Amino acid sequence: MIQSVAFIGLGAMGYRMASHLPKHFDTVYVWNRNFDKAKQHAIEYGTQAVELSQAVQADVIFSCLPTSADVEALIETLNIKSGAIWVDCTSGVPTSAQKLAELLKIQNIDFLDAPVSGQTIGAETATLTVMIGGDTEAFERALPAVQAFGKLIKHVGASGAGFAVKAVNNMLMAVNLCAATEGLSTLKAHGVNLNEALDCINASSGKSNATETILPQRVMNRTFPLSFALPLLAKDTGIAVDLVRQAKLSAPIIGLTQSLIQVANDTAESNSDFSSVVKMYETWSKITIE
Amino acid sequence: MIQSVAFIGLGAMGYRMASHLPKHFDTVYVWNRNFDKAKQHAIEYGTQAVELSQAVQADVIFSCLPTSADVEALIETLNIKSGAIWVDCTSGVPTSAQKLAELLKIQNIDFLDAPVSGQTIGAETATLTVMIGGDTEAFERALPAVQAFGKLIKHVGASGAGFAVKAVNNMLMAVNLCAATEGLSTLKAHGVNLNEALDCINASSGKSNATETILPQRVMNRTFPLSFALPLLAKDTGIAVDLVRQAKLSAPIIGLTQSLIQVANDTAESNSDFSSVVKMYETWSKITIE
Amino acid sequence: MIQSVAFIGLGAMGYRMASHLPKHFDTVYVWNRNFDKAKQHAIEYGTQAVELSQAVQADVIFSCLPTSADVEALIETLNIKSGAIWVDCTSGVPTSAQKLAELLKIQNIDFLDAPVSGQTIGAETATLTVMIGGDTEAFERALPAVQAFGKLIKHVGASGAGFAVKAVNNMLMAVNLCAATEGLSTLKAHGVNLNEALDCINASSGKSNATETILPQRVMNRTFPLSFALPLLAKDTGIAVDLVRQAKLSAPIIGLTQSLIQVANDTAESNSDFSSVVKMYETWSKITIE
Amino acid sequence: MIQSVAFIGLGAMGYRMASHLPKHFDTVYVWNRNFDKAKQHAIEYGTQAVELSQAVQADVIFSCLPTSADVEALIETLNIKSGAIWVDCTSGVPTSAQKLAELLKIQNIDFLDAPVSGQTIGAETATLTVMIGGDTEAFERALPAVQAFGKLIKHVGASGAGFAVKAVNNMLMAVNLCAATEGLSTLKAHGVNLNEALDCINASSGKSNATETILPQRVMNRTFPLSFALPLLAKDTGIAVDLVRQAKLSAPIIGLTQSLIQVANDTAESNSDFSSVVKMYETWSKITIE
Repeated sequence: MIQSVAFIGLGAMGYRMASHLPKHFDTVYVWNRNFDKAKQHAIEYGTQAVELSQAVQADVIFSCLPTSADVEALIETLNIKSGAIWVDCTSGVPTSAQKLAELLKIQNIDFLDAPVSGQTIGAETATLTVMIGGDTEAFERALPAVQAFGKLIKHVGASGAGFAVKAVNNMLMAVNLCAATEGLSTLKAHGVNLNEALDCINASSGKSNATETILPQRVMNRTFPLSFALPLLAKDTGIAVDLVRQAKLSAPIIGLTQSLIQVANDTAESNSDFSSVVKMYETWSKITIE
Repeated sequence: MIQSVAFIGLGAMGYRMASHLPKHFDTVYVWNRNFDKAKQHAIEYGTQAVELSQAVQADVIFSCLPTSADVEALIETLNIKSGAIWVDCTSGVPTSAQKLAELLKIQNIDFLDAPVSGQTIGAETATLTVMIGGDTEAFERALPAVQAFGKLIKHVGASGAGFAVKAVNNMLMAVNLCAATEGLSTLKAHGVNLNEALDCINASSGKSNATETILPQRVMNRTFPLSFALPLLAKDTGIAVDLVRQAKLSAPIIGLTQSLIQVANDTAESNSDFSSVVKMYETWSKITIE
Repeated sequence: MIQSVAFIGLGAMGYRMASHLPKHFDTVYVWNRNFDKAKQHAIEYGTQAVELSQAVQADVIFSCLPTSADVEALIETLNIKSGAIWVDCTSGVPTSAQKLAELLKIQNIDFLDAPVSGQTIGAETATLTVMIGGDTEAFERALPAVQAFGKLIKHVGASGAGFAVKAVNNMLMAVNLCAATEGLSTLKAHGVNLNEALDCINASSGKSNATETILPQRVMNRTFPLSFALPLLAKDTGIAVDLVRQAKLSAPIIGLTQSLIQVANDTAESNSDFSSVVKMYETWSKITIE
Repeated sequence: MIQSVAFIGLGAMGYRMASHLPKHFDTVYVWNRNFDKAKQHAIEYGTQAVELSQAVQADVIFSCLPTSADVEALIETLNIKSGAIWVDCTSGVPTSAQKLAELLKIQNIDFLDAPVSGQTIGAETATLTVMIGGDTEAFERALPAVQAFGKLIKHVGASGAGFAVKAVNNMLMAVNLCAATEGLSTLKAHGVNLNEALDCINASSGKSNATETILPQRVMNRTFPLSFALPLLAKDTGIAVDLVRQAKLSAPIIGLTQSLIQVANDTAESNSDFSSVVKMYETWSKITIE
C-alpha cells in the first residue's frame, strides 16, 4: 500500500505529471534542481517541496530528467528508503536501467524504467502512455501511482525494456518524418499540391503520425514550435542504433536515419524542435515543405 | 453531362469499382481480357459486356490494369470517341500519363491519371481515395463518374501528379513497414514483448499504418494474405525513386528502401503479398515478428 | 585506312588529346564552339581549324563535350560523311549512345562511345585509358586513331558499354572517397594522426585511389584544385544509378552515395572540384581532413 | 635493451610472425593454447615452448588472438614481469586497449595495441604493416622487436589508435568491395565484359584494393579461399561503427556497409572467407561476378 510518493525533476513533463499525484496520495514530495519550481508546484498543487534526502524516503519515487547520466549521478549521492520503488520516467538508456536495477536491488530498492509518451498535453490530461521495464512484482506495486498520470500502461519486459521501446518508438517517428519529407519534396518538385497530396496519403496506406500530425501541425504551418528538442531526438535515435548493434542485427534504415538525424542536429540552430530535421532537407533541395 | 461510362480491366479492384456504376448511369460498358469475367459482371450487376471498340465510345472510360505499359499498349490500338475522358485508375508511371495525355489531346480526348487507394474493401464499399492528375476542366467533368466508387477525391496537379502521389504513398508505406520491422526485431532480440510494444507505439509518436494495420493484420498473425503483390509494390517504389532522380533530389531513405524492396522481391516466393518484405528481414535475423 | 581525322570540343581534355593526332595523320581538323581555341590549336599543333561541316567529312570524328545532350544537339544539325566513324569521348549516357548508334547506322555512319580516364596529365602524355562500346568492326577500324592518345584501349561491349564502364568507375571513385572521408573523420575524432593512418591504410587492404591520390593531393593539402567539376561527378554518378534502376538491381551503397554526391553538389560553392564532397562532411562534423 | 621476447597465440599469422624473432633475439618464448603448435614452432624455428607464466617474464610480450575479449581473459590470470611491454597484434577493440593500458600501467607494464596488415604472406616475409597505439616511449622501446616482422611501422596515436586504424582500414576494404560488386553486377546486367571493365577501372580513378586484388584473386576465379573469415570482418566493421557512434559522427556509408556485412555474415555458410560477401549480392541479383 503506497503511503507516500515523490517526484524528482519538474520540467515541462514532470511538472504536469506530478500535478496529478495529490489527487490520489496524501503525501507527495517534489524536488527540482531549481528549487523555486518545486515551491511553486507546492503552492499550485498542494505538494510538499522538500530536500532531496527527504524525497527519497517516499514509497514510490518518480524521476523525470534529461538523460540516464543525470539519473545515475543523482542516485549515486542518495540514501534511498529500503523497500522503495524508483520509477524513472526519463527517456533513458536500457543498459543504464539494468545497471541501476542491479545496484539498487542490493539496497532492497526496485528500479523500473518507465518512459512516457504523449507530450505535455498528455501529461496535463493524465493520458500518457507509459512503457515499463523491470520486475513484475514491482510493476504491480507501483501501478496505482503510475495510473495517476498514465492511461495506457504496459509492462513490456525486464529492466531496460521500457527505455528500449521508447527509443524504438522515437526512431520510427524519425524514420517516418524523414521519409515523408523526402516524398513530399519530390512531389512538390513535380508540381504537386502538398496539401492535397497529404490529404490523400492520410487516407491511404502511407500515413503515419508524421504525415497526420507532425507535418501539418509543425512544418507546413512553418511554426516548428520547440516542444521536443532535436538533441534529445538525436540521443533517443542513438539509443536505438546502440540496441541494434548490441543485438548484432542488420537494420539499414534505422542506421541511415540516425546518420541523417545526426547531421540535422550538427547543423541546426540551437533550441531547434525535432521537426527542424525537415529544414535540413529544405537546405539541400531548396524546396520548402508548405 | 455523362450519358455512358465504361470500365476496362475487371481485376480484384476493377470488378468491385465497376459494380457501383449502374447505380448512377444507364449505360455502363465493361470489358476484360478474359471476357468471361465481363459477362459475369454484366449478369451480376446489370452492366453490358461489350467489345473493346464499343466500350471506348462511352463518355467516360475507366481503366484499371497492372501497369502503364498495359494501358499504353491498349490505347494504341483503339479509336476512342472524340470528346471522351479516359480515367486511368492503374497505379502507373507519371511520364506515361503525360505522354498519353498529350497524345490523346490531339484526338480531342482527355486523359486523367486517377489511381486509387483503399484496397478491395474500399472498392466494395465505394469509399476509395482517388488522387487525380490532369486538366482541371476534365477533372470536373469526370468527377460525377469517379464519385461512384470514390469518397475522398482530390485533384492533386497536372498530368502525372496522381500517379506520383500514389507512388510516393506506397513508398512511404514501404519505408514505414521496413523501419517497423527493423525496430521490432531489435526489441524482440532484447526480450521485449512485441504485442505490448506495438500497443505502446500505436499510442505514441512512432505509429504508422504499418504498425497499426499491416503488422497486426498480416504479419504478427502470420497470414501474409495475398492482396497486394510484392512485385507491384516493387514497381510502385521504383516509380517513386524515378521521380526523385528526375527532380535531381537527394532522398537517401527512399533510395535505400527501394534497394530493400528490390531484394525482398528478388528473393521472395512467387505470389507473395507485399507484407512478405518482413520475411526477408526474418531470414537475415532469425527473429520472427510475432 | 584512315586518311583524315577530326576533333570536336577542345576543352581541357580535348585540346590535349587532339594535339597527338598530327603525329599520326596528315589531315587533322579541329573545331570548337569558341573558335579562337581551334585557331590556337592549329597554330600550336599544325591541325586545321575548320567549319563544323567540313570537320564531319573526316574518316574518324572525335567528340569530347560536357554531356550527351550536347553531342545529340550537335549531331542533329550535321551532314556527316557516309562511312565515317564518330568516336564520342564524352562521359555520356549509355541510352544516348544506343540511340545515336542506331540513328547514324541508317546514314552508314558508325558511332562508338569511347570515354577516357587519366585526367589532363594522361591526355598530355597520350596515356589515357579508353573504354569503348559499339560495333566490333568499327572499333577495330577506329583503333589506330584512338591509339594516338590512348594507352589502355578496351572494347568493353556493345553501344553504351563504354559510357557504362566510365559511369561505374566514377561512382566507385565517389564511394571510395566518401567512405575514406567518413573513416578518417572518425579516426581524427579519436585523436589519430591522419598522415600516419593514411600511410598504414595505403599499405593495407583498405587502400583505393581515393586514399592514395585524391586525399593526399587534393584534400589534405587543402588545395581542392578544380580539374573535374563536382556537377560532372554528380552527372556521372547519376548515370550509374540509372543503370542500376534499368537493370532492376539492388545496389544500396551506390544509391546512398548518389544521395550524398547530390547533397554535396546542391550545397557546394560554384566551380567546386569533385573533391569538395569532403567539405560537405567537414561542415557536418566540424572535423577537417588534414 | 630487449633481452627476451615472447609470442602468445600461434595462429596462421602469429606462427609466421614469431618465426622471425630468433633471428634478432637470443631468448624467444612461444605459447599457444593448443600447446603442440608451440612445441612444433620450437622445433622448426629454435624458439622455446614454455608455460604461459614463464612467457610473460619476457621484456617484450606479443599476443595475436582472435578478439580483445580473449586478450583480456588471458591477461586477467597472469603475473606479468614489471617493466615489460605487452604488444597486442590482435585486431582488437580500442576501448579494450585503453582499459588494458590503464590496468597494466599500475603494475608498471606498458600495453601497445599493434594490429598488423599484410596477410600470411606478409607475416612470412616480415613485411607486415604495423599500426601502433600507446605511449611514445614504450613504442620506441618495443620498436626493435616489432621490426622483426614489420616493414612499415607507424605510431598512430594514444592507446586504442592502432586498433582504430585497423578497424577503419577493414571497413574501407568492405565498402570498396561491396561497391565494386554492385558496380560490376550492374555492368554485367548491361552486357559489359567484366574482365575488360575491371582492366579499365584498375587503370582509372575508381580502382581500389578490392578491384585490383580481391575481385580478381578471390571472386572472379570463383575460389573464395578462406584466409580471413567473414565473422572476423563483421567484428572489425562493427568496431568501426562503434567508433563512429562514440564520436557522435554521421557516417552513412560506413553504417550501411556494416548492415550489409552483417547480413552477409548472418546468411553465409560457415567457414566463409570475407570475399563471400559477394555471394550475398549474387543471391540477390542472380548475376555472377565472373
